[in-house]
Amino acid sequence: MTALTVPIPLPNAPYHIVIGEGIMAQAIEGLASSLPSPRIIIITDSMVAPLHLHTLTAACAAAGITTESIILPTGEATKSWECLGQLLHTLLDKRVDRKTTLCALGGGVIGDITGFAASITLRGIPFVQIPTTLLAQVDSSVGGKTGINMPHGKNMVGSFYQPLRVIIDTRLLATLPLRQRRAGYAEILKYALINQPDFFAWLEAHGQAVLDGEPAALTSAIARSCESKAAIVLADEKEQGVRALLNLGHTFGHALEAEMGFSDRLLHGEAVAMGCLMAMRLSLQRGHCPTSDEQRLRQHLQSLGYALTLQELCAHGWHAPKLLAHMAHDKKAESGVKTFILLRGIGHAYLDKSVPDDAVITALQSFIG
Amino acid sequence: MTALTVPIPLPNAPYHIVIGEGIMAQAIEGLASSLPSPRIIIITDSMVAPLHLHTLTAACAAAGITTESIILPTGEATKSWECLGQLLHTLLDKRVDRKTTLCALGGGVIGDITGFAASITLRGIPFVQIPTTLLAQVDSSVGGKTGINMPHGKNMVGSFYQPLRVIIDTRLLATLPLRQRRAGYAEILKYALINQPDFFAWLEAHGQAVLDGEPAALTSAIARSCESKAAIVLADEKEQGVRALLNLGHTFGHALEAEMGFSDRLLHGEAVAMGCLMAMRLSLQRGHCPTSDEQRLRQHLQSLGYALTLQELCAHGWHAPKLLAHMAHDKKAESGVKTFILLRGIGHAYLDKSVPDDAVITALQSFIG
Repeated sequence: MTALTVPIPLPNAPYHIVIGEGIMAQAIEGLASSLPSPRIIIITDSMVAPLHLHTLTAACAAAGITTESIILPTGEATKSWECLGQLLHTLLDKRVDRKTTLCALGGGVIGDITGFAASITLRGIPFVQIPTTLLAQVDSSVGGKTGINMPHGKNMVGSFYQPLRVIIDTRLLATLPLRQRRAGYAEILKYALINQPDFFAWLEAHGQAVLDGEPAALTSAIARSCESKAAIVLADEKEQGVRALLNLGHTFGHALEAEMGFSDRLLHGEAVAMGCLMAMRLSLQRGHCPTSDEQRLRQHLQSLGYALTLQELCAHGWHAPKLLAHMAHDKKAESGVKTFILLRGIGHAYLDKSVPDDAVITALQSFIG
Repeated sequence: MTALTVPIPLPNAPYHIVIGEGIMAQAIEGLASSLPSPRIIIITDSMVAPLHLHTLTAACAAAGITTESIILPTGEATKSWECLGQLLHTLLDKRVDRKTTLCALGGGVIGDITGFAASITLRGIPFVQIPTTLLAQVDSSVGGKTGINMPHGKNMVGSFYQPLRVIIDTRLLATLPLRQRRAGYAEILKYALINQPDFFAWLEAHGQAVLDGEPAALTSAIARSCESKAAIVLADEKEQGVRALLNLGHTFGHALEAEMGFSDRLLHGEAVAMGCLMAMRLSLQRGHCPTSDEQRLRQHLQSLGYALTLQELCAHGWHAPKLLAHMAHDKKAESGVKTFILLRGIGHAYLDKSVPDDAVITALQSFIG
């Protein structure tokens, strides 16, 4: 299969995303001449390493690139201050220099901590992303957000830092559990809901093929998602305006994750899917969105096996005011003002900073029953 | 006294430096309208706080800005991973948001850790620098370098991050010991040596007045230094070319500091002054620089009370090969190649990556005797 290329023409740090089924070797060969020196330190986790590390190291060896690897524990707990400190120690022990490239081989956790480490090691060294989950492929490939969690919340410490290149080999998804693929699909759906009603219609027809991992549908959905995110990020690199729309489903989603203690009981993408439906429901209840659009979204989610209530999502003592309290602590809440991305309908997201707390409670309540 | 303004017209993050004697109140009033919200968290140290914190908080109160303060321990040990982690915790405990401004009130240590904390808190919040040492005023006011030390070396972890404004009130230097002023003056001298022979001549005439803290001479020397550094940084923001000239005296200086374990027995500026003389001596021995220029630099340093040999600088068992070994571990040593900034004469610095180790040893040896 030929690789698709999505250019990300950021003014100060342009790069491109290479996407396709089984394109690892050709993508690494294409990368070799762009590296400041032929030395890569691969950062991956204990789940991904046995599955995909050899594919990457073999591709690097064939392209004349020497590799070393650092294998971190799998899971969100790796995105911690302590783990980052250990990673930096290991990199410095390996005598990393400014021409050494870091390569993130893994999901969002590995991408976020590796990108952050690259941005602050020697005040910034190059890095390449090879996302191995659908979520990371469609979410962290564009935007340059890196970071770690603090006891105060998710991604409270981090940086904006752009990769040298992103390589998306959809073959890596063959080993990904359906639950993870469904979580990644939530972000794809988000782009459609924000400003692309025709993409939403395409997903109604091809969503199942995407989840099933059919190469053409998957490549197409990923490329379209990356392009869609890029258009928004390019308009607002440092997140001061329109980029806020990318948080559709995230104000609700983060509150759900915070309530579950950011544990594996609730995946980020699962929270975002539910969060999108909550944003739609809130919009509907506030009279800003047609009933038919809320139904259409609900049906699409249901047809693909998503939870439609909080109890279905995760068995837990859900409590609306507690979820609201989590939102007040969100890092995007400026001086206590909560920001919601609402929907005038499918493909028409907008920002609202004046949603009354009781309206949020009512919307949340409708998912608790 | 009227404040001087030095513009730093960086394409993505322009700011300006306000310089003058007793200009704190007027500078803070001028800052107020540029803050995203009237809330400043001041980060300072236990030495500076009793001397200058009240001047700053009073100026802020008068300008309608609310302040909180965090007082860190004084000294280089504060620039550590652990201390940075604690600082970030404290900031998040205070519910810092993206419109909260951090203000560094202190010397290089406070400026470096505050700038770094600002660059990674919530992926970047605004910060203002109020340097209280001559070194920080002429060195960290321009360039955007932030960072902390690791066991592997100084500033091994950090970022490039620009302040919203820099305020230099020379009155704050009245409480600064002569040893510290002399250390700061070394960086002023460095700018003259790099590419400004006329500034060097001016310093030969006014250097003593600068060290004595005479307001007009001091303001003028600081402004000229900031302009000089800005011209170089603007040509090379991310340190990939000409900016390397700013490391004049630093390859040697860092080796001296590493040998002394980055302790207070040897100040950074003291090491840089000696490093500049070492670079000049090495240039002379390699036949690249006239004897008269080496003599002129030596005489200027001597007239202002600087050490001219390593034993005078610091009583210690100095050993040239050991100093050379420290240089090989410098973070600027790419793949083991040491970079030296040498001098064709006063005001004519250049970069040399091919200095043989034995030439370095010979130069070092001439300072050990």
